[in-house]
Amino acid sequence: MNKKNNQHIEKHLKSSAFITDVVIGMSDGLTVPFALAAGLSGAVHSNVVIITAGIAEIVAGSIAMGLGGYLAGKTEQEHYQAELKREYDEIETIPEEEKREVKMVFAEYGLNEHFQTMIADELAKDKEKWVDFMMKYELGLEEPDVNRARNSAATIGISYIVGGLIPLSGYFFTQTPYQGLTISAILTVVCLFLFGYFKSKVTGQPPVRGAAKVTLIGIAAATAAFMVAKIFNTMF
Amino acid sequence: MNKKNNQHIEKHLKSSAFITDVVIGMSDGLTVPFALAAGLSGAVHSNVVIITAGIAEIVAGSIAMGLGGYLAGKTEQEHYQAELKREYDEIETIPEEEKREVKMVFAEYGLNEHFQTMIADELAKDKEKWVDFMMKYELGLEEPDVNRARNSAATIGISYIVGGLIPLSGYFFTQTPYQGLTISAILTVVCLFLFGYFKSKVTGQPPVRGAAKVTLIGIAAATAAFMVAKIFNTMF
Repeated sequence: MNKKNNQHIEKHLKSSAFITDVVIGMSDGLTVPFALAAGLSGAVHSNVVIITAGIAEIVAGSIAMGLGGYLAGKTEQEHYQAELKREYDEIETIPEEEKREVKMVFAEYGLNEHFQTMIADELAKDKEKWVDFMMKYELGLEEPDVNRARNSAATIGISYIVGGLIPLSGYFFTQTPYQGLTISAILTVVCLFLFGYFKSKVTGQPPVRGAAKVTLIGIAAATAAFMVAKIFNTMF
Repeated sequence: MNKKNNQHIEKHLKSSAFITDVVIGMSDGLTVPFALAAGLSGAVHSNVVIITAGIAEIVAGSIAMGLGGYLAGKTEQEHYQAELKREYDEIETIPEEEKREVKMVFAEYGLNEHFQTMIADELAKDKEKWVDFMMKYELGLEEPDVNRARNSAATIGISYIVGGLIPLSGYFFTQTPYQGLTISAILTVVCLFLFGYFKSKVTGQPPVRGAAKVTLIGIAAATAAFMVAKIFNTMF
């Protein structure tokens, strides 16, 4: 087995998928609550208000991501099953049309008519594999794992909560929003870099550049939120 | 051209992609700012604070989504180019191994050794198509459109801002958070349903069920944020 296949299989290992979800949830969870708290730090004078807003955002964001991801996974599963049923029906009712579709896949790669027909005839001998081929190569659909979608949604949602509590923690033990922001910014930038690094590692991107990107997004979002909230607040 | 191909092409039309991005950005933008404002409505007594927090969230969320999406698109493009270069190198340096990989794709579908070899030899005649085949069917990679990623990120980010201003607008012209929440909830639930409907239409899902899901996620997130923020606030 060559290296590419190894990587491919590795990506489907349960433990690896779990770690990916944790890292994605946490790095996303760090960003928006951090920026929201930073934005409010320039506009309100109470750490309790900032923490309340941060907690409301974390709850809302984790549900939107978690429940949203779960329902999207279910929809994808239903879509796959509907298409699968349609392909099974079509190879029964319009087999010649379906064979023509197989041939078109190979026509695109410059294989001549003779080859196309041979492949289509050969594939047609096993209906299950024929449908499987159509699903993957004509429609570009892979069978979604519904348990995976549910677990993934829960893991990302929970990790978002954990990630979001990191920037807020700066406001727990300080007296003023500016003190809170200082601690929060230091903590969050360090964590964004670390999680950006791991996120890039597990998703197969260059880790240092990936870490820099994640950190940059967090800082840009926080700076913009701070400035806009301050401008808005001085107007009222 | 059959119906499936029509749908496939339609999905790649520029105007359709633009509408998809608008609808996705707006329906997402409605959810979290709505839930955040609802959460704060149970905990603070000033509409200005709620609007400030909402604006900070919208700015942070749109930058995280927009910039995040743009950088993710660029990373995907780089990854594709790196893999493309590797495949071109490999068909020069280890052509037999690469032919074996083509054969494995067809072995999976029950085609015999004889067929596999014929197809692999035929594909190998045109290097560009050979690499193209490897990219798509062995690695499952389609060439990402970098302009598309940038435009898509900007469209989603801006739509998120527009979507987010809808729930906040309830607090602009009312005196108390509870009045604001009432208007905000009515406006947002109507818009969530409408955008959920269009979102499902453009992403090819059953529209009424899709609309119900999007609305449900928004209501669940807002209810949870309201309760958690209220509990937290009564503790301090």
